[in-house]
Amino acid sequence: MCFKYLITFFALTSTSFTALYAQEANTFKPSATTQSGKRFPQVNAKGQVKASISAPSATKVQLDIGGVQYDLTKDDKGVWTGESAPQDEGFHYYQLNIDGAAVPDPGSKYFYGAGRWGSGIEIPAHDQDFYALKDVPHGLVSENIYFSKITGTARRCFVYTPPGYTENDKTRYPVLYLQHGSFEDETGWSSQGKANLILDNLIAEQKAKPMIIVMDNGYASSRAESSANSTAAFEDVLTKELIPMIDAKFRTIANRQHRAIAGLSMGANQTMRIMMNHLDTFSSIGGFSGTPNYPSGDDINPATFLNGSFSNGPALNKQLHVLFLSKGTKEGNPFPASIGAFKKMLDGQGIKYVYYESPETAHEWQTWRRSLREYAQLIFKK
Amino acid sequence: MCFKYLITFFALTSTSFTALYAQEANTFKPSATTQSGKRFPQVNAKGQVKASISAPSATKVQLDIGGVQYDLTKDDKGVWTGESAPQDEGFHYYQLNIDGAAVPDPGSKYFYGAGRWGSGIEIPAHDQDFYALKDVPHGLVSENIYFSKITGTARRCFVYTPPGYTENDKTRYPVLYLQHGSFEDETGWSSQGKANLILDNLIAEQKAKPMIIVMDNGYASSRAESSANSTAAFEDVLTKELIPMIDAKFRTIANRQHRAIAGLSMGANQTMRIMMNHLDTFSSIGGFSGTPNYPSGDDINPATFLNGSFSNGPALNKQLHVLFLSKGTKEGNPFPASIGAFKKMLDGQGIKYVYYESPETAHEWQTWRRSLREYAQLIFKK
Repeated sequence: MCFKYLITFFALTSTSFTALYAQEANTFKPSATTQSGKRFPQVNAKGQVKASISAPSATKVQLDIGGVQYDLTKDDKGVWTGESAPQDEGFHYYQLNIDGAAVPDPGSKYFYGAGRWGSGIEIPAHDQDFYALKDVPHGLVSENIYFSKITGTARRCFVYTPPGYTENDKTRYPVLYLQHGSFEDETGWSSQGKANLILDNLIAEQKAKPMIIVMDNGYASSRAESSANSTAAFEDVLTKELIPMIDAKFRTIANRQHRAIAGLSMGANQTMRIMMNHLDTFSSIGGFSGTPNYPSGDDINPATFLNGSFSNGPALNKQLHVLFLSKGTKEGNPFPASIGAFKKMLDGQGIKYVYYESPETAHEWQTWRRSLREYAQLIFKK
Repeated sequence: MCFKYLITFFALTSTSFTALYAQEANTFKPSATTQSGKRFPQVNAKGQVKASISAPSATKVQLDIGGVQYDLTKDDKGVWTGESAPQDEGFHYYQLNIDGAAVPDPGSKYFYGAGRWGSGIEIPAHDQDFYALKDVPHGLVSENIYFSKITGTARRCFVYTPPGYTENDKTRYPVLYLQHGSFEDETGWSSQGKANLILDNLIAEQKAKPMIIVMDNGYASSRAESSANSTAAFEDVLTKELIPMIDAKFRTIANRQHRAIAGLSMGANQTMRIMMNHLDTFSSIGGFSGTPNYPSGDDINPATFLNGSFSNGPALNKQLHVLFLSKGTKEGNPFPASIGAFKKMLDGQGIKYVYYESPETAHEWQTWRRSLREYAQLIFKK
């Protein structure tokens, strides 16, 4: 049954490949997220995306990226081609619209985000070296299936173990629990997030301590509840099931000094709430593009916020090794206001934190890749 | 930038979900390969696939599966829906055609095969219990990146470590090197192949020995060659780079008695050739839907075939722990003839082998899942 597809594949890859590629070599070329053997999608140095698809009978084909649709133009062979405006550096979800059908681009690799598996495009970034695949020692990313008694379901997490983990059988490592954002899942950080490559490179340069990273799914609902209380159930799964399982399965250093947590967007909100309920479990927290007062930009009253968790600044400064916050400079509402209000509260309480802004990026993965790069260099150094 | 997609996602999942689902509950329901939260594709007990997609301006939409196109019908809201003929049990690659554009179904999960990342559909099988996700101890599947000096490129393999591997630091395990077919890659066996779940279940029932499984990419070309000699370069990568790396990284039993090899289709051809060149390295071989005389169905002369590798039957019977061959009963040309000719040669030489036929399946993954189930129960038992 494969054979029909094989023929299609050969036909596609041979069609005027040489001529077209030579003509456009100076400007557009396949993206890092273009499927091997496919010519499109392509990107250029300005960050434009060029999509192309054969659709001889279609009347309207669009590239849909960043909330904007770009009309493609049909040639005399029925192939539609067109370009987007320049996009921000880094990774973006996108799709094609063919006569009103929103579909993945058959030329791209697929990623989970925005609530679906679909197309993603990588725009080369000026600082892409920090997540490049290099000839350095590489850690492993392993898929772990486990059954949760709290949710009554099978769940899955991905676990990064640093270079050298498998070659020795003695060394124990600190652990970072790293969470995705809303409508994403446990695959995000080690796929479009490049968490494994970021750590491989930092560890090779001795800029970060070798660490285990656990990337679980932040959605959970307890079997006792009919409607999901996502953060509460996830907090239980994380602290009562996931951490004990990781400490049993992997060579961790199982204490708060060697356990950190972080998350992006929804994951920032979740992990900061969980952190403040479990200061005996974690010593560092990273909130990337999110804070627990989201989406409000109102002033925070530390006496009442999260049951007064932030009311005693001096005590918190002793307990927290790293409190890290970040966002991209191009992030829109409600993030600047809500993160601003949270920082203002911290400042008012005299609580120490590290703040990072990702230049020229929005509420997207390039912001979070850079945030992880910064945060990973701070933790487990006390 | 995610937000537009989030709105789309909500709109799609809420549109008349309840009404449609209730109406069709007795027959069609989402497949195991349908994306979480999506209503289509669906399958029924007869093995029919129902696809549905909104494409208000399209003039022709088809479901394309198994080399056959099925026309979908448009309703007054612009949603196209239609059904395929009954499909064989197990996993199939498919796509949608929208006004001449061949695209992935936005409702399915995506798999690598047929030379592309694209849609796959799981048809429930009468024997699906053997690869079901159960509440048994689960091994891990880890992604391993390594640099090959032979190819001059980064390569990737997936490694299954059995339940208990990470919890202890002493036990050493035998290793199965397990290869994909043509136009597939290193992701196939642990995704649509279900190799990890098959072994988790067999090990839980004590039907297979706990083992490590290494799933590499069978495509390789040496940096010295301008044109790819895939099997020759892969043979070098496997024996000179991959096996030493695996033996260094994982707790293997690094000898031929505890090393087996197997592959499907192209991978069967490759691994049987490699096996006969490296009887000092491997003791068991499994050829699933493939043999090294492919695609010929002519009689094989053992004196000359593969440099006379099969010319001394009694000696081979002492060296080979398991020689396993399989195919599906519905496989078409050239497989019945080429596998038949290979078996005839083995019979003529008095070489012992185990032969398995997967009932009512073609040259597809259900044949190979079952073949792995059979083969895994035979190896590492001497």
